[in-house]
Amino acid sequence: MNDETMEFWSETCQELIKKSQNAISPLIGSLEGSKIVKTGADGTPTMYIDVVAEQKVIEVLESIDKPLTLISEEIGQVNLGKGQPEVVMVVDPLDGTSNAVKNIPAYGISVAVAPISTDQKGPLTIQDIQMAFVKNYATDDFYTAVKGEGAWVNGKNPTPSSKQDLSQISLGAYVYRMNMGKIESLCKSVRRMRILGAVAIEISYVADGTYDAFVDVRDNLRLVDVAAAKLILEESGGMVTDRYGKSLSGKLSVLEKTSMIATCNSVIHEEIIRIVEGI
Amino acid sequence: MNDETMEFWSETCQELIKKSQNAISPLIGSLEGSKIVKTGADGTPTMYIDVVAEQKVIEVLESIDKPLTLISEEIGQVNLGKGQPEVVMVVDPLDGTSNAVKNIPAYGISVAVAPISTDQKGPLTIQDIQMAFVKNYATDDFYTAVKGEGAWVNGKNPTPSSKQDLSQISLGAYVYRMNMGKIESLCKSVRRMRILGAVAIEISYVADGTYDAFVDVRDNLRLVDVAAAKLILEESGGMVTDRYGKSLSGKLSVLEKTSMIATCNSVIHEEIIRIVEGI
Repeated sequence: MNDETMEFWSETCQELIKKSQNAISPLIGSLEGSKIVKTGADGTPTMYIDVVAEQKVIEVLESIDKPLTLISEEIGQVNLGKGQPEVVMVVDPLDGTSNAVKNIPAYGISVAVAPISTDQKGPLTIQDIQMAFVKNYATDDFYTAVKGEGAWVNGKNPTPSSKQDLSQISLGAYVYRMNMGKIESLCKSVRRMRILGAVAIEISYVADGTYDAFVDVRDNLRLVDVAAAKLILEESGGMVTDRYGKSLSGKLSVLEKTSMIATCNSVIHEEIIRIVEGI
Repeated sequence: MNDETMEFWSETCQELIKKSQNAISPLIGSLEGSKIVKTGADGTPTMYIDVVAEQKVIEVLESIDKPLTLISEEIGQVNLGKGQPEVVMVVDPLDGTSNAVKNIPAYGISVAVAPISTDQKGPLTIQDIQMAFVKNYATDDFYTAVKGEGAWVNGKNPTPSSKQDLSQISLGAYVYRMNMGKIESLCKSVRRMRILGAVAIEISYVADGTYDAFVDVRDNLRLVDVAAAKLILEESGGMVTDRYGKSLSGKLSVLEKTSMIATCNSVIHEEIIRIVEGI
């Protein structure tokens, strides 16, 4: 993408974020927002607030004068605008839905953009993401990145923690129902744990040292939900792999699942993988 | 306490909360705030932001024209003003310190007030608390209660969740280092877990159904840190006991420790205790 194209998509992303945030704002902490209205493209139940958030994203993208492919939780994958799509836009319209409807202050949006070259062969992967945006709506903290150019938190370049001692770290984790046992030995090895239930925000927390690491070892994390946060963390200098230490390389699809180890540096990264894998 | 006295102490509490919040506000998310400056009355390390928060509380209480006993994390116990203390004021000047210095939006203050009658014999206990105030500074959510009169969240009476099925609940927990194993079977039994690291705020979350339950099974929770939240939850209709199902009855002292099971109703309460105790 040239500078002008980058600028266009960046502005589009910022506009859809602002408008989607405004659209869901009356539903924060509300019963109305938490009503289950359907089952999403990925098979999970969808709350009304999710639909409102995504509808506004689609509305903004339909109003622009460029063709694109949108990949998002409820809609799955859809081409918008006329002609050959110029970009794939990967959106989680509401990261931390259950927090949003309970007014727990960790919920927001994740938007990632990958350009489609004219000679593109085969599906794009998470490694093709060029621009990333994550916003915590509850605090207005805004995390962005451009591949090869850096990351920004509220406009400033973030630095991940330089901690090397696992027993001193703050670890964020995503757990759901039965899988706490999988990370029990990891929990015992760190100083402090947090479970906020907002994956994109919590991975972004590693970029600026709010967390030292974040893990999700379920193999059930939607790749598209972390597409933006992965770039933000990598561009800040942090590390992202799956739980086996492999780079994430999955296709941009709502059906693609992964595990995730996101850390401040390679020393902490290797220690966490050693513990998670029981080596 | 008569109405006039209640009103006086309520206004005093609200003033010290406002001023302490303003005093620490420049230190949120700052390295300066996180500097370890000393060891508190209870033996735990004290950050600079803790000292600033408590100093402002003391400053406000020294400026009023009534004698009281202040119990607080760093100072331990001190009599302020001239003459026989009229009340014991139990303050955690900064609940969730580590969140405050990392800008994780769950940190605030806990203030509880117990009147001292003229014929008071022996030390006051947590059951003597008459007024309670908990505020999440990051969101300005404000939780209050008056014994026998009710609880309020941002001015409205809260209602705890009516869920009866443990497998559907949202559970908050406080864990620190090695003790995740103690609640592993509980984690596997619930729908959703959160660990925000701000005890008073998270117990207050049970009062209005944000959480269905909150547990801390370490036997290492400072009683004074939960003195206010306990009353808020009980006045909302929720339940609070230690992990054996016994009422909290400890003395108002920074050295008093407890465990805590805080829930929305007796059905969920009994199920959690059964699992925690392995019965």
